[in-house]
Amino acid sequence: MLPDRPAIAVVGAGAVGGYYGSRLAQHGHDVHFLLRGDYDAVRRYGWTVRSCAGDFALPPEAVHAYDDLRRMPKADLVLLAIKATGADEYESLVAPLLKPNTAILNIQNGLGNEDHLARLFGPDRVLGGLAFVCINRTGPGVIHHTDHGLVRLGEYNGGPSPRAEQIAGLFRAAGVPCEVLADLRQGRWEKLVWNVPFNGLGALLDWTTDRLLATPHGRRLVADLMAEVMAAARADGVTFAVSADEMVRRQIALTEPVGAYATSMQLDRRAGRPLEVEAILGEPLRRAEALGVPVPRLRTLYDLVRLVDPAGTPADLVPRTASL
Amino acid sequence: MLPDRPAIAVVGAGAVGGYYGSRLAQHGHDVHFLLRGDYDAVRRYGWTVRSCAGDFALPPEAVHAYDDLRRMPKADLVLLAIKATGADEYESLVAPLLKPNTAILNIQNGLGNEDHLARLFGPDRVLGGLAFVCINRTGPGVIHHTDHGLVRLGEYNGGPSPRAEQIAGLFRAAGVPCEVLADLRQGRWEKLVWNVPFNGLGALLDWTTDRLLATPHGRRLVADLMAEVMAAARADGVTFAVSADEMVRRQIALTEPVGAYATSMQLDRRAGRPLEVEAILGEPLRRAEALGVPVPRLRTLYDLVRLVDPAGTPADLVPRTASL
Repeated sequence: MLPDRPAIAVVGAGAVGGYYGSRLAQHGHDVHFLLRGDYDAVRRYGWTVRSCAGDFALPPEAVHAYDDLRRMPKADLVLLAIKATGADEYESLVAPLLKPNTAILNIQNGLGNEDHLARLFGPDRVLGGLAFVCINRTGPGVIHHTDHGLVRLGEYNGGPSPRAEQIAGLFRAAGVPCEVLADLRQGRWEKLVWNVPFNGLGALLDWTTDRLLATPHGRRLVADLMAEVMAAARADGVTFAVSADEMVRRQIALTEPVGAYATSMQLDRRAGRPLEVEAILGEPLRRAEALGVPVPRLRTLYDLVRLVDPAGTPADLVPRTASL
Repeated sequence: MLPDRPAIAVVGAGAVGGYYGSRLAQHGHDVHFLLRGDYDAVRRYGWTVRSCAGDFALPPEAVHAYDDLRRMPKADLVLLAIKATGADEYESLVAPLLKPNTAILNIQNGLGNEDHLARLFGPDRVLGGLAFVCINRTGPGVIHHTDHGLVRLGEYNGGPSPRAEQIAGLFRAAGVPCEVLADLRQGRWEKLVWNVPFNGLGALLDWTTDRLLATPHGRRLVADLMAEVMAAARADGVTFAVSADEMVRRQIALTEPVGAYATSMQLDRRAGRPLEVEAILGEPLRRAEALGVPVPRLRTLYDLVRLVDPAGTPADLVPRTASL
């Protein structure tokens, strides 16, 4: 269990960390943000949040912002919301913040990085979270939250726990809908049903979700990938309450009203940043193949996205104009 | 059989029609070119060919160029080299040129369009040709031939024929290596082993062949697609003398020395022209699926290329910047 008013460290205050951390701070929690590029802006202007759940601003005097980990207090709860591509930094970013009973809540898409956290810090500390939210950082210290917002979280070790319920209660009291997962792995696979097609295809084509859904060919790609992810998930022990067809129908029904949404992976590609390709596509692919589940479309998409990953393109592959 | 000095009409004088037609004219054949965009340039300056097999130019007085089909003489041989996307025009472009025994040689990639010609003009008239050549039109009336050059041709009705041998002889006498196919369908599938990955991926990514082969992920995509095409071809009655692994090795060995080659489909995408997606990807896919052969990578590539086909993007799908 955490103390009644836990010290919360938000590590990786991009759109997701910034939004949930700000919501917690807005409701009186003791929140400490570790910032990089946004440090100066947040220090001067605080956080500005345009949100479908209600706009708000946190003035600078209400924000504990740091650009140096060594100045931060140790935390009871570390809310880790850095890119999945940043797993190399877990040890240096998290270890200095830990007390004996500090919980680490890793909010991220994809698979694999909680295993890494568990190896580094012990499985008992680790929880995983999934943010079902349409949210982008539109400028330094400025967050635009356009749709949805649910957080689902669960223990790495599995099963509900008083601690997980307590953290969910913190979110709910801050106006963030939150559910505790009985099975984190199941929750991660369920979210991948959406993330694999929309993040993968969105990054590959630089297309927003509405364009992917605007033609029969795009809808078929989305649906076929969803079916493969579900097959892999089932082989990994996940049960779905609905058929693949019904799942596709529901996911599309949730996505269409959002309009021209650019996934984080599409935005990363546009900005020339490394893509979360291993967590969202590579690790699910490897688990499926290890379980003997055929996932040729996922394999194809993974290989294609690896080709366009700004982090994966060697210098000698800079585009050149064919002179033919 | 054709007359000893047949009247040859070249319909669709882009890079392929322009090159082979010019070679035939260079060697004294009676060649008549139907031109569109290049008409004025060819009329004024003739053909200019930079070729790895020897540069040459045909002065305007040595070229029979037309921009009006009605002014052209009827032909003994129609060399049809228009885009596979132009099949709607076959009747209007070819019918006025036909005599009772005119042969139609369709030089094109992919599957399906000779069936269409056979329905329009009778199967006995139709031959198909495959150009194994790296060639681009670099300007009006200017052709750049950088590598290879073999033509393989065969009767639509199958089997060798004196007529096919005679046409092959015309090409050979003009310095163009040419082989007669015992089985045109087999020849078309064999060429698709190359065209499906390189044209499809090249158009999807706007990447030249060297980039596709420069990383393990690109090579795996190429190899996996080749294996699927071979499986589909086998189900359609084609026999390959080598294994899929050996085929991949040979195709890559033929492709790497060519360097940064932009396939015609990549160039079409760059120029905003319709892609030959149905002939090169769609028809092979449909045949494979009709034969019960799993080709999920080909299906994925087909759907993706359909999404980026300039001809297939409705006006309401013009790219817009996500404002999120």
